[in-house]
Amino acid sequence: MGDAKVTIKEIARYAGVGTTTVSRVLNNHPYVSDEKRRRVEQAIAALHYRPSQTARHLRGGSSGLLGFLTDDVATTPYAVDIIRGAQDVAWAHRMVLLVADSGGNSRFAEAAVDVFRERAVEGIVYAAMYHRPVRLPAGLDGLPTVLANCFLEDRSAPSVVPDEVYGGYHATKAALGAGHRRIGFINLWEETEGVTPPFPAIYGRLRGYQQALEDHGLCYEDALVRFSDQTPRENYRHTRELMALPAPPTAIFCGNDKVAMNCYSALAELGLRVPGDVAVIGYDNIAHIAEGLLPQLTTMQLPHYEMGKWAAQYLIENQGRTMAPVQMALPCPLVARESV
Amino acid sequence: MGDAKVTIKEIARYAGVGTTTVSRVLNNHPYVSDEKRRRVEQAIAALHYRPSQTARHLRGGSSGLLGFLTDDVATTPYAVDIIRGAQDVAWAHRMVLLVADSGGNSRFAEAAVDVFRERAVEGIVYAAMYHRPVRLPAGLDGLPTVLANCFLEDRSAPSVVPDEVYGGYHATKAALGAGHRRIGFINLWEETEGVTPPFPAIYGRLRGYQQALEDHGLCYEDALVRFSDQTPRENYRHTRELMALPAPPTAIFCGNDKVAMNCYSALAELGLRVPGDVAVIGYDNIAHIAEGLLPQLTTMQLPHYEMGKWAAQYLIENQGRTMAPVQMALPCPLVARESV
Repeated sequence: MGDAKVTIKEIARYAGVGTTTVSRVLNNHPYVSDEKRRRVEQAIAALHYRPSQTARHLRGGSSGLLGFLTDDVATTPYAVDIIRGAQDVAWAHRMVLLVADSGGNSRFAEAAVDVFRERAVEGIVYAAMYHRPVRLPAGLDGLPTVLANCFLEDRSAPSVVPDEVYGGYHATKAALGAGHRRIGFINLWEETEGVTPPFPAIYGRLRGYQQALEDHGLCYEDALVRFSDQTPRENYRHTRELMALPAPPTAIFCGNDKVAMNCYSALAELGLRVPGDVAVIGYDNIAHIAEGLLPQLTTMQLPHYEMGKWAAQYLIENQGRTMAPVQMALPCPLVARESV
Repeated sequence: MGDAKVTIKEIARYAGVGTTTVSRVLNNHPYVSDEKRRRVEQAIAALHYRPSQTARHLRGGSSGLLGFLTDDVATTPYAVDIIRGAQDVAWAHRMVLLVADSGGNSRFAEAAVDVFRERAVEGIVYAAMYHRPVRLPAGLDGLPTVLANCFLEDRSAPSVVPDEVYGGYHATKAALGAGHRRIGFINLWEETEGVTPPFPAIYGRLRGYQQALEDHGLCYEDALVRFSDQTPRENYRHTRELMALPAPPTAIFCGNDKVAMNCYSALAELGLRVPGDVAVIGYDNIAHIAEGLLPQLTTMQLPHYEMGKWAAQYLIENQGRTMAPVQMALPCPLVARESV
């Protein structure tokens, strides 16, 4: 990567700041404005600057390692963007990620914590692959940990999650903005052994849906809101039943992109066109589905990359300090395509 | 993880071998049969055994680190299974993965190689997110490297890739086995600046398709084979054109699951049922699509997890030796669901 000094100058030029400011950001010095810090970090990322690890070791004696522990990336593949977000921030701070995927096995997770300790990681990002309350593996005491896409029931550790209310609100608002007044909602549901899971996605998006209707002076109607167990046949059935109502919806907000995919099929079989006859909005922005459907699906983006960034950033900013258990919620923005 | 000695005993019991055999596997001793090695590794994985890193350091002075460098996980999310496969093998050998995702940026990739060197990784798995020839980043000379899901044009480094011919052959055979004799094939295509990419997926699967027909005494017909640029509208158009042939196919083999998704839509609009009127076979086994479609999609599995395992295994087996540039191709098995 060439001479570190030249590269610091390059960063300063790119960011439009002095080299002192760059140095301060690299050393996590507190006296840098948020705006300058952001510009320097963007320059570091854009130029892929990486100062000498050796210099860092000599100076601080720190390992330069962050641990990244996940439960199961495989179930929600786009959640790997959480890793990328954390990596990009770690990199900008001359740190490297040690990654361990426990596959949901708690014994493996505990062993991973042991490994991270042996390697003297400076902190851990613990990421869940869908938004939910979690219990941390044993052995994390005293090791700075930030949760991404999950949280502790007692909120005793910092966490960053998607703002589900925001997502539900803006999905509904997109339909309202296109003139729709009867908006169906096929929400998610999954019961495990008779226990209703307290998944924030389910009630958060419902609250957002209700709020958007209320803001437009519309009444909430139970008949327009369904809960699907997410199997293709149930998603299909709920669409058919919504469209069989005496006053069927003209727009359907789907709990995720897979629901939307089955909703499309049911509408096609009824001879109904998207969005001409019925508008459809998804959730998750699974590119393979959303970009692959005809017409392409308007949907809500889960902020995976941003959560990874936020978690790593919060760890790094608070190195050597006690972390306040901030509970951060990041917006799920609308990705407008062709279905509304 | 408790006492390492007890755990070695547990592994021996689980694997049905002696503790000496377990020790030999852990130390990469050559005098262990392949079958016993496999049983021990399965036991290690199943029990999530992790011996003391300290002991390993004291004995060998090695870093216990493997580098994992990818180009862009985000584009093909299920390819993260390559990471999981490599991790599981590394773990079983008391090694930890350092992961870096270059996002396709060659400067970042070179910097990652520097970091891996500084951290004294014992080898590198270089993974591409779709099967293709690659150039390795600068700076890898002398660092043992195994390529996963990609290969060097001159085959000078070991690599493990999906067997595309096998996949094309068995996809076609699945349709033949269900009695189909006219089998359409919507193959992939993507031209970049007028250059035809030599993607093994394209010609490999075509060869497999041709071979399967030949084995059944059927002639290859140009009219039944299409090349789609993978946009939804083109996938849709090719399906419509296949079905408009004087003798339309009764089965369609799609180059990937997204093509199959658009193929379903086109067939639905023609009032044709899957698989009653037309059977459909996909490729890739993207769970969100294949399990989400109605009927669920029969498709070919890319061996991501297995490639990650193979690459890490080959690195570890050859530690301290010159690696032969083996070019390994792993089968893409059929995942039978409801569409054939």
